[in-house]
Amino acid sequence: MISSYIANDNDTIIAPATPAGGAICVIRLSGAKAIELCDKVFHGRKALKDAVAATLHYGFIKDGDEVIDDVVIGLFRSPHSYTGEDVVEISSHGSRYIVERIISLFRDMGVRMAEAGEFTRRAFLAGRMDLSQAEAVADIIAADSRASLTVAATQMRGAYSAELQELRDKLLHITSLLELELDFSEEDVEFADRTQLAELLNTLHDKVSSLARTFALGNALKHGVVVAIAGRPNVGKSTLLNIFAGEERAMVSDIAGTTRDTIESICNIDGVTYRFIDTAGMHATSDRLEKMGIERTEQALRKAHIILWVCENDVCNIISDLDGFIPNNEQKVFRIINKIDLNPNKPIELQNCPYPTLGISAKTGEGISTLIDNLSAAVDTSTAFNGDVIVSNQRHYEALHQAENSLSSAITALKNNTSADLMSEDIRQVIYHLGTITGEITSEDILKNIFSKFCIGK
Amino acid sequence: MISSYIANDNDTIIAPATPAGGAICVIRLSGAKAIELCDKVFHGRKALKDAVAATLHYGFIKDGDEVIDDVVIGLFRSPHSYTGEDVVEISSHGSRYIVERIISLFRDMGVRMAEAGEFTRRAFLAGRMDLSQAEAVADIIAADSRASLTVAATQMRGAYSAELQELRDKLLHITSLLELELDFSEEDVEFADRTQLAELLNTLHDKVSSLARTFALGNALKHGVVVAIAGRPNVGKSTLLNIFAGEERAMVSDIAGTTRDTIESICNIDGVTYRFIDTAGMHATSDRLEKMGIERTEQALRKAHIILWVCENDVCNIISDLDGFIPNNEQKVFRIINKIDLNPNKPIELQNCPYPTLGISAKTGEGISTLIDNLSAAVDTSTAFNGDVIVSNQRHYEALHQAENSLSSAITALKNNTSADLMSEDIRQVIYHLGTITGEITSEDILKNIFSKFCIGK
Repeated sequence: MISSYIANDNDTIIAPATPAGGAICVIRLSGAKAIELCDKVFHGRKALKDAVAATLHYGFIKDGDEVIDDVVIGLFRSPHSYTGEDVVEISSHGSRYIVERIISLFRDMGVRMAEAGEFTRRAFLAGRMDLSQAEAVADIIAADSRASLTVAATQMRGAYSAELQELRDKLLHITSLLELELDFSEEDVEFADRTQLAELLNTLHDKVSSLARTFALGNALKHGVVVAIAGRPNVGKSTLLNIFAGEERAMVSDIAGTTRDTIESICNIDGVTYRFIDTAGMHATSDRLEKMGIERTEQALRKAHIILWVCENDVCNIISDLDGFIPNNEQKVFRIINKIDLNPNKPIELQNCPYPTLGISAKTGEGISTLIDNLSAAVDTSTAFNGDVIVSNQRHYEALHQAENSLSSAITALKNNTSADLMSEDIRQVIYHLGTITGEITSEDILKNIFSKFCIGK
Repeated sequence: MISSYIANDNDTIIAPATPAGGAICVIRLSGAKAIELCDKVFHGRKALKDAVAATLHYGFIKDGDEVIDDVVIGLFRSPHSYTGEDVVEISSHGSRYIVERIISLFRDMGVRMAEAGEFTRRAFLAGRMDLSQAEAVADIIAADSRASLTVAATQMRGAYSAELQELRDKLLHITSLLELELDFSEEDVEFADRTQLAELLNTLHDKVSSLARTFALGNALKHGVVVAIAGRPNVGKSTLLNIFAGEERAMVSDIAGTTRDTIESICNIDGVTYRFIDTAGMHATSDRLEKMGIERTEQALRKAHIILWVCENDVCNIISDLDGFIPNNEQKVFRIINKIDLNPNKPIELQNCPYPTLGISAKTGEGISTLIDNLSAAVDTSTAFNGDVIVSNQRHYEALHQAENSLSSAITALKNNTSADLMSEDIRQVIYHLGTITGEITSEDILKNIFSKFCIGK
């Protein structure tokens, strides 16, 4: 099924592919007329139309007799370009004024400003990449750590799509057999081998649910692992945040309630981005601002992947310390006993606590490197760095989740010997949802929504 | 005379040539090892060392087995590159993380981060451009209007250098003859034809002083034409500024003294940048803040290229209106009679005023387009847009000014039949100052100073 999305995909488009304000700016043109129109304003040693593909050309961009800038042109010919169309990349000096002049020259010749993501959308429509690969391009541009880049790059290289594609093709084949049965429904024949079908549905269910399960990790690697630092007032939470931040990020004093709002600090440990959130200490208060701070602490605790429950001794109780908050099973909790420098000879009591316990001194730095090792180990990056497929895209996760539900329902239908037409409908749903990930199935709305999140020029 | 400036100009350097945060980022490598080192991390269809110059190559940048990004490489071979050295331009995705990873890969192989302007400095040292052309590159990048771009582009294309160069060569020739006379000083011979010399010195003097005179215009076109809006309180100065700004830039009320500090608004008229400055109204006051505002008004008046003296009727007096400020001969003054809508039938009295007078209504917009035409005509851009050489660089202006002085002194010496050795010293000075413009004469300090103002990656 081919996309129904057609939004003047035949005209020639232009956009800067780099921000202005640097030494140079790259302006990208794509479309059937890109080379012909560029030749009207570019004056080099020879016309671009006569030049070999994948070559560089020095010359001038002129508006009539007026030289606007001397530029280097990169020439790409269809289909060997990013969009699959003829593409010209103009490297001008980085002046915003020059970039505006060059773009308006082309607009005067009927070239249209590219919409956000339109170059990549054309690459998708030309079959240069599938939809999940196109989406990975935006993730790569936004990547800010080794982990987020690796996850996006694996997706862009299509490991993921290839796997889904293969299973989807098998399903398509079996569905066509199921639907053939419907044509002969009065004759009670079975074209689709039920054993083979059950096997395929189970394999697919395992695959889809294991992919969906990687989303928690993928999402954390993409947006940062949220680490909430929580506990009673004055146990040293802000001092601990400042250690991770490497600066005096949060105000520290011996007054309980110094931290009122949540304070966030981003840092990178072993290629993974962690978002440490220093929270207000949990305690009964009538102060309106402090109450608001405590509400925000609860929000932070709910979204945390990891909770560092900071306390001063080993007799404390997490439920009272976190004001009734109970971590869910997905959250990793560490009990951090701070200020161990005050009682150097007292060993930490580990009994009666279900959470791994670490003694530290935020003041002297003792125990911090062990804590960091534990944080690192709490995020299983081995799969990511091994190039395994990890889902980090919310849209894909939802599609996988829906495919999983339809698969369960198809498996049940098969077990119960339900008629081919009902089962076939479930399988059609699975095929549909998997197809939305790679873009075999898509709609104008989905495409608009995806590409509008891209930057201009990509 | 070749520059003595050598700062590891043989090693290979790297820097991003575009800001991160766009769709793509261009990373530039230059130096003898650029291609060889790039081949160690770039994996494309063939090695760059075997590729033809001025070609584009798609492939992957890898750190060991880890793919960092898929990139397009632009390959330039010495001497046909910006710096004159081997140059590799890597277009990666625009993620800051990717750019950092790629740069650190090269740094690990011994490539050095380029200093600000170092690529252009190498282009200068390789003789790809002279110093005034190299300086124009920075001006082109900073250009924000048609006028500032045209002035910089004319300079970069070397119109200016060529002219100076020719005159300087003639002087060099004649000086060598003069100095030959010194060797035979006891024999009273004249190798240098005095008539020819006088002619040359006069031509050069005319040329140099006419170039120096263009600096006022060049400076205004480069940094913006300063237009001070001045007058008594409450005559409508802020309302006029808001018209130019196209928005409510300055606060307006009927209370005298509403504008306390100077307020600036930049706008572009016919390709020229104007910096309109709304000033505090001039009036006797004991308020300390108002007094400070009036001092700042005086500063604005002093630096203005154009003064819009706003008044409400034609009986006013500029000296009392501007609190004793007397415009100099270089400044263009317009008397703007505002609020003509209040007396529609009263013609404006032009007598007794040395300044062109225009009636406007800042409130209704009447007369504004005529005022804009007058502003436009007050800045003679015809020479700039005709591609005439206009000096816009302070350093060049100072060198021209000094050359002019030495020329005057040489001409006087010649008239007075002064001895060849004294005259020769004056001419040496002229040669020296002209040489500093194009960079035949330079020093490490001058180069450092010039290129440190460049951006990284250029």
